[in-house]
Amino acid sequence: MEYLPVNFNSKFSKIEGHWQPKGIARLNNYAFKIAKIKGEFIWHKHDDTDEVFIVNRGELVINLPDGSVKVSQGEMFVVPKGIEHKPFAAEECEIIMIEPEGTLNTGDKVDEKTIDEIEWI
Amino acid sequence: MEYLPVNFNSKFSKIEGHWQPKGIARLNNYAFKIAKIKGEFIWHKHDDTDEVFIVNRGELVINLPDGSVKVSQGEMFVVPKGIEHKPFAAEECEIIMIEPEGTLNTGDKVDEKTIDEIEWI
Repeated sequence: MEYLPVNFNSKFSKIEGHWQPKGIARLNNYAFKIAKIKGEFIWHKHDDTDEVFIVNRGELVINLPDGSVKVSQGEMFVVPKGIEHKPFAAEECEIIMIEPEGTLNTGDKVDEKTIDEIEWI
Repeated sequence: MEYLPVNFNSKFSKIEGHWQPKGIARLNNYAFKIAKIKGEFIWHKHDDTDEVFIVNRGELVINLPDGSVKVSQGEMFVVPKGIEHKPFAAEECEIIMIEPEGTLNTGDKVDEKTIDEIEWI
């Protein structure tokens, strides 16, 4: 049997809009989610989990309480649990996030950007 | 404060030799490990966890009990827990693995390729 890998670019080609995470793979109880983003997200935190951001294309800035980090294609950053953060991308950017399944995209905040249940693609 | 991302190519440039996983980041109790590989690994399985393989460069083949999967740059595959697998790369390949910290590279087997404790770079 020939199994198929998950191709990141192929998955990104299926999504439209910004800040709308989609599930693409599971690792135990963790979810791999992808999103196209542009502009500013909201300040929020995840009290129970770290959160991984990997950039597939473009440039992501994660604002943190005492500074920021710029994450480019081929790079990742781990936001530690409990730390406030605000993602930002000046131009459209493709990000992969890894976190426990069920982690809310807006963390401790509820906002018009909150996505209660993600779609799997 | 300016934080620094983890740059995959920069981390890979620090390692020599094949089949020697190095830790590069933590997500809760999970480890991100990287390795350069070439040739055949051994058949093994992880009874307690799924295992993610992401290819940073080159082409990875994962042999499975009833077939195989080819994973290229920009692709990932999740080997489900308990499933025997044997990674293979015809040419040198750079892989990123994600699994619970402490997961043994040779799973249920002990072999000259077994690495009891990984180095963090």
